[in-house]
Amino acid sequence: MFSIGVDLGGTNIAAGVVDKSGKIVQLASIPTQRERNYAEIIRDLVELIQHVINKSSIHWSDIQKIGVGLPGVVDKKNKEVIYSCNLPFRYAPVGRDLKQFFDKPIYLENDANCAAIAEHNCGSTQGVYHFVLVTIGTGIGGGIFIDGRIYSGFNAAASEIGHMVIHSMGEKCSCGREGCFEAYSSATALIRQAKKALESQNDSILGQRVRSKENPLDAKMIFEAASEGDGLAQKILRDFIYHLSVGIVNLINIFQPEVVVIGGGVSKAGEDLLEPLRKQVYGSIYSGDFIPKPKLTVASAGNDAGIIGAALLEK
Amino acid sequence: MFSIGVDLGGTNIAAGVVDKSGKIVQLASIPTQRERNYAEIIRDLVELIQHVINKSSIHWSDIQKIGVGLPGVVDKKNKEVIYSCNLPFRYAPVGRDLKQFFDKPIYLENDANCAAIAEHNCGSTQGVYHFVLVTIGTGIGGGIFIDGRIYSGFNAAASEIGHMVIHSMGEKCSCGREGCFEAYSSATALIRQAKKALESQNDSILGQRVRSKENPLDAKMIFEAASEGDGLAQKILRDFIYHLSVGIVNLINIFQPEVVVIGGGVSKAGEDLLEPLRKQVYGSIYSGDFIPKPKLTVASAGNDAGIIGAALLEK
Repeated sequence: MFSIGVDLGGTNIAAGVVDKSGKIVQLASIPTQRERNYAEIIRDLVELIQHVINKSSIHWSDIQKIGVGLPGVVDKKNKEVIYSCNLPFRYAPVGRDLKQFFDKPIYLENDANCAAIAEHNCGSTQGVYHFVLVTIGTGIGGGIFIDGRIYSGFNAAASEIGHMVIHSMGEKCSCGREGCFEAYSSATALIRQAKKALESQNDSILGQRVRSKENPLDAKMIFEAASEGDGLAQKILRDFIYHLSVGIVNLINIFQPEVVVIGGGVSKAGEDLLEPLRKQVYGSIYSGDFIPKPKLTVASAGNDAGIIGAALLEK
Repeated sequence: MFSIGVDLGGTNIAAGVVDKSGKIVQLASIPTQRERNYAEIIRDLVELIQHVINKSSIHWSDIQKIGVGLPGVVDKKNKEVIYSCNLPFRYAPVGRDLKQFFDKPIYLENDANCAAIAEHNCGSTQGVYHFVLVTIGTGIGGGIFIDGRIYSGFNAAASEIGHMVIHSMGEKCSCGREGCFEAYSSATALIRQAKKALESQNDSILGQRVRSKENPLDAKMIFEAASEGDGLAQKILRDFIYHLSVGIVNLINIFQPEVVVIGGGVSKAGEDLLEPLRKQVYGSIYSGDFIPKPKLTVASAGNDAGIIGAALLEK
C-alpha cells in the first residue's frame, strides 16, 4: 500500500506517492501562485494529486490515504485550516473539499509538524520520543515531539518557536512583534545580515562572489566563503550562530529534549554549522555542567520531509 | 490520612501536615541557613518534620507519605537532587537520607512543579490539563502541565522558563547568560528597575514612600503608588509589564496552553497586574486574531502552594 503526501507551501505545491517505509516513489510539483484564491489553489492541488498517481505505475486501489501539510494552524479533527500566514486560507475546509474528489481518508497537519514526523519515522530522530525540530528557511518553524507525539497545544497553534522574541524591541518581524527568533536566525535574516555587512566592506571574498556570480546571495555562498577564510563571512556567521544559539538554548532550557534537530536549507551546512553552534549552546545551558545534555544534529529526511511526513499522517 | 509537604527553599524550610483535600492543618518553618553543608540542612529538615507532626494532634500512623519540593533538578526515580542553584545539593541522595528516619514513601520534585501541582489540584487551574505556571519571585520559575502531568524533559531539568533570553546581550543573569526573562521580570528585577528610576526622579509618591517608610522598597509599594496616580511608578510598571508580556507571549506561542497562571509575590497585585498584562499579551499572540486565546490569571493556592504540591506528590 501507498500514501499520497502533499507539501502545500507558499511557493510550491509538491505531491508524492510514498511507500510504507517513507520512500517517495513518484513526485510532482507546481507553483502555488498564492496570490490566487482558495478555490483555485485547491483545484490545482486536486489535479496535482491525480497527476502524480497517473505518472506512477500505482493503481488507485493501492492508495491508502492522503495527507496534506501546510503552513498554518490546523484543526485536525474537523480537517480545516483555521489560519495560514502564507496562504489565503481562513477556516478553510480542505478535508471536506478534497473528499469530494478522493474517496480516501484525508489528514491535515502543520508543515513543520509533518517534517518532524518524517524525522521521527525515517530521519535523524528515528526512535527518539522527545525532540524539537527547528527548521531554518524563509522563516523558522518548529515541530515538538513529546512522548512520541506531536505537541500542538489546546488550540492546535503551538510550537511557533520562530515567534519567540529573543531581543525585545529588536528587528521587526512579519508577525508584528519585534525581535523574534525568526527575524535573527532564519535564512532570510542571514542574507539580510550579509547584505548589510557587505555594504560597508565589499572587498571580501564574499563581496567578489556576489558581484561576479549570476546566482543571488544565499546561505551556501556565505558558508563557502567563510570556510575559504573570508573574515567578513566568518563574522557574519559568528553573529548569526550566536543568535541561533540563544534561541536553541531557550528551547533547551524550556524543553530539555533528547535531541534538537535542525532542518531547512541552512542545515545543509552540516558540521560547518553544528560545530560552532554546539560550542555556543553547550556552554550556555542552564545547570548544564550537571545534567545530561541534549544532542544537537541536522535533519536527514531531506527536502521532501514535508511530503514524507504528510504521507505518514494518521488519525 | 495525611501527608507531609516540605518546601525546602534557599531562605526557609517550611513543613506542613496536609489533609487529603490539600488543606494545611499544621505548619512550621525554620531558616535554611543555606551557607551550611548538606548534612546539616537535612538534619534540620528531619527535626522540622518531627516537630510539625508532634505539634499537630495527628498520629504517625495516620501519615501516609512525605513529599519534598526544592529548587533544582530532581531525579524523581532515584530520589536524588542532581543540582540546585540555591542549595549546596549536588547529586544529593535526599530520599535515601530521609528514609533512614521515616519509614514512609518519600517523593521529591522541583519546587515550581510542586506549586503547579497545587494549582492543578486546588488552585486556579483545577481540572485544567494544559497550563503553564509562571512564578514571579526572587527569580522566575516555571511549572508546565501537559496532558494533566508535569513536563520535566528527558533529564528532569526542563521548564526553566526564567532562563529564556528575551533580550540578547541584555541584563546579566545569575545563570551566566545575558537578557534572561528572570533578569527583566522577576520581583528582584522590578525592584532594581524601580531603584534605578528613583535615582533620577525621587520627588514622586514612590520616592517619598521609600524615604519615609521603614520597610524597604518592594513590589507592593510600586503597585500602590501607581494606583494612587504616581507617574513614575506607572512608568516603572509599564516597562516591567512590557517585558513580562514578551516572556508570556513567547510561552504562549510555544505552548498554547489553556491557561497561563501567574504565581509568586508579584501575583498578589491581582487585576492591577493582569489588566494591563492582558492588553499587551492578547495583542501580540501569533495568529491571535484567529485562534482561541489562553486564559491569563493569577495563582490561588497561596504562599503555601509549594507545601501543598509536595504533599500531593505520588509515584
